[in-house]
Amino acid sequence: MALVVQKYGGSSVSDAERIKNVARRIAKAKDRGDRVVVVVSAMGDTTDELVRLAYQVSEHPGDRELDVLLSTGEIVSSTLLAMTLRDMGYKAISLSGAQAGIRTDAAYSRARILKVETRRVVEELKKGRIVIVAGFQGTTDEMDVTTLGRGGSDTTAVALAASLGAEVCQIYTDVEGVHTADPRLIPEARKLAEIGYEEMLELASYGAKVMHPRAVELGELFNIPILVASSFTDSSGTLIHGGVSMEVRNKVRSIAHDLDVAKITVVGVPDRPGIAAAIFQSLAKAGISVDTIVQNASIENITDLTFTVTESQLAKAMRLVRPIAKSIGARECLSDAKLGKVSIIGTGMQNTPGYAARMFGALSERGINIQLIATSEIRITCIIDEVKVKDAVRALHHVFEMEVVE
Amino acid sequence: MALVVQKYGGSSVSDAERIKNVARRIAKAKDRGDRVVVVVSAMGDTTDELVRLAYQVSEHPGDRELDVLLSTGEIVSSTLLAMTLRDMGYKAISLSGAQAGIRTDAAYSRARILKVETRRVVEELKKGRIVIVAGFQGTTDEMDVTTLGRGGSDTTAVALAASLGAEVCQIYTDVEGVHTADPRLIPEARKLAEIGYEEMLELASYGAKVMHPRAVELGELFNIPILVASSFTDSSGTLIHGGVSMEVRNKVRSIAHDLDVAKITVVGVPDRPGIAAAIFQSLAKAGISVDTIVQNASIENITDLTFTVTESQLAKAMRLVRPIAKSIGARECLSDAKLGKVSIIGTGMQNTPGYAARMFGALSERGINIQLIATSEIRITCIIDEVKVKDAVRALHHVFEMEVVE
Repeated sequence: MALVVQKYGGSSVSDAERIKNVARRIAKAKDRGDRVVVVVSAMGDTTDELVRLAYQVSEHPGDRELDVLLSTGEIVSSTLLAMTLRDMGYKAISLSGAQAGIRTDAAYSRARILKVETRRVVEELKKGRIVIVAGFQGTTDEMDVTTLGRGGSDTTAVALAASLGAEVCQIYTDVEGVHTADPRLIPEARKLAEIGYEEMLELASYGAKVMHPRAVELGELFNIPILVASSFTDSSGTLIHGGVSMEVRNKVRSIAHDLDVAKITVVGVPDRPGIAAAIFQSLAKAGISVDTIVQNASIENITDLTFTVTESQLAKAMRLVRPIAKSIGARECLSDAKLGKVSIIGTGMQNTPGYAARMFGALSERGINIQLIATSEIRITCIIDEVKVKDAVRALHHVFEMEVVE
Repeated sequence: MALVVQKYGGSSVSDAERIKNVARRIAKAKDRGDRVVVVVSAMGDTTDELVRLAYQVSEHPGDRELDVLLSTGEIVSSTLLAMTLRDMGYKAISLSGAQAGIRTDAAYSRARILKVETRRVVEELKKGRIVIVAGFQGTTDEMDVTTLGRGGSDTTAVALAASLGAEVCQIYTDVEGVHTADPRLIPEARKLAEIGYEEMLELASYGAKVMHPRAVELGELFNIPILVASSFTDSSGTLIHGGVSMEVRNKVRSIAHDLDVAKITVVGVPDRPGIAAAIFQSLAKAGISVDTIVQNASIENITDLTFTVTESQLAKAMRLVRPIAKSIGARECLSDAKLGKVSIIGTGMQNTPGYAARMFGALSERGINIQLIATSEIRITCIIDEVKVKDAVRALHHVFEMEVVE
């Protein structure tokens, strides 16, 4: 009798029909003899509607009050799901984050889970009940309600799975799993049966559309296998886990891309300590995230500093960087808004030479110019023209034989 | 520095504008230097909408789950009200029923308050905060959420006032207070400055439209003065309390009426023990409430039994009563659907003869036939033709000089 934790996102429970559909999936797991804990998000747009209400009465809704307000969304969906299961003849009970023992710090709107007191959940499971837990929320020691911020319900699910010693944490969402490339861009992209935690994390924005990196990291930390699958079909999904074989034939696991990339180059920077810090601290203070950073080798103590931001933040970033560049005596500031990013990812690349060469070769064969290169141990990223991204992903998908089933 | 508990009903917080209006009223009390605890109902039709959602997924939504679901309505309004006050520069905090220490039995959907653990509310008041409590809800010892059923938020307010030793419990609603008669029927009806608990309770359905009897009873038990007033105007309202002078000149305090009355008479009932029980137990089991019951003096061990029900329950009641009447050998069953009820109420009537005579005289002068009479110590009720009710209320209002200010 395995213990499984299932999580259903907001689009999976957006109306009564979908809630019934989810209930049938949960019932199936219960019928197989599993003990089932379910984590559920708020229905459809509920959270947005509650936020809208808050801003109707207050310009700056206090975080504490806003958290209590938002937490009602998941309570509504969890009770409706429990009712539905009971109506189908199953024993089910809904628990708020507080009742499920999710204890957090007091950082409202972005609380971190400190521990999970599983007493109540374990008791309810012993009574043979399906336990439906309101996701995205917890309480402080003072029993004040907090919400977990982005990726909150995924994180609730993985945290519960870890604390309860679940066999697997199943994340049901509106995509079929993790693919070798974004299937909306590359029709021949293939769904992966499995992927490693780190590979999943390196998928960055594409991966985050499937599952929040924070929850993936938590899964890695406690070594909880995470199945990502669609709540609308019966396809098998992708298992994110730590035991992915290092010897799989196809060592590039997935190709990630990003169309929203802009580049800033500060040309002719005197190469002395503190220059980079001045620039990046100023950007961080303004809430601008910098992605790839490259600094050329210094020639006669003069270097070029290049980094990327999102297109929407480019103008703001340039306004900040220009005066700093001037004050440090740099020659000029250049920018390019129409760039994209393509990455190949796979733990199999570690300590195996030749991947970078094959990637650069494939791009050059198609006349795609590489503007920047950045690498991690299991990822190689090239910044290229935005209009060439689709071409590049397709070429790499082919070169690394990713349409072939392992 | 007085401690006041204020309660605002659903229509007073049905949208952002009304919430802001309520916040301004609360702020005014705070500005006067009072310590303020506020109990709030769910916004407008929220509760109905949540019930509708529940019935979309389940034919019989479990009481426990339904209670958790419904409790979110008051949590939403309480957080919004707290945000509004904070936006206005006041220190305010919302507390759920659980956080406010409202402990109940486990009778879901109609829980009774067992005690109020005031620790958290007292702490927050000490910090100078306005405390906004979600009405209508509490928790069991197991920390499961319950709702209090009809009159729930009024009851939360009075219970908090009693436990905190508040000076007064102010119930803000969409009427201006308690009147000498229903002002929609009798334009000359006058708002009462004060009324006794028992008089308020005897107002029955008219009184219940102003405030739930359950909360009035609780107020009487703990001797908490209750002010009923409009949340939309600044008029002074009606104070329900125990100290109403017995010597007020006008001893009839209010006239109540009810247009929804039907009468059933079982004619020729053998006068032996158990007959009435057989009839009324059967009606109670079917959920039919019986109001006035009159049994004539027995002549040769044969009597007539008359009682009233609502018009909508008449047909069902007749279907139940007819076979019983037959089985006990009664002669026949008669019914009349088009009746009404008029009552004069006032503690001043106690031990003071002549009120009944003046009432019956006033009705007979206007050619109004009295079909049934029932009395309590502080109330005299006549059942008359439905079409004569308005006439009767007006006549009594005049005869007892109720348009005259005390």
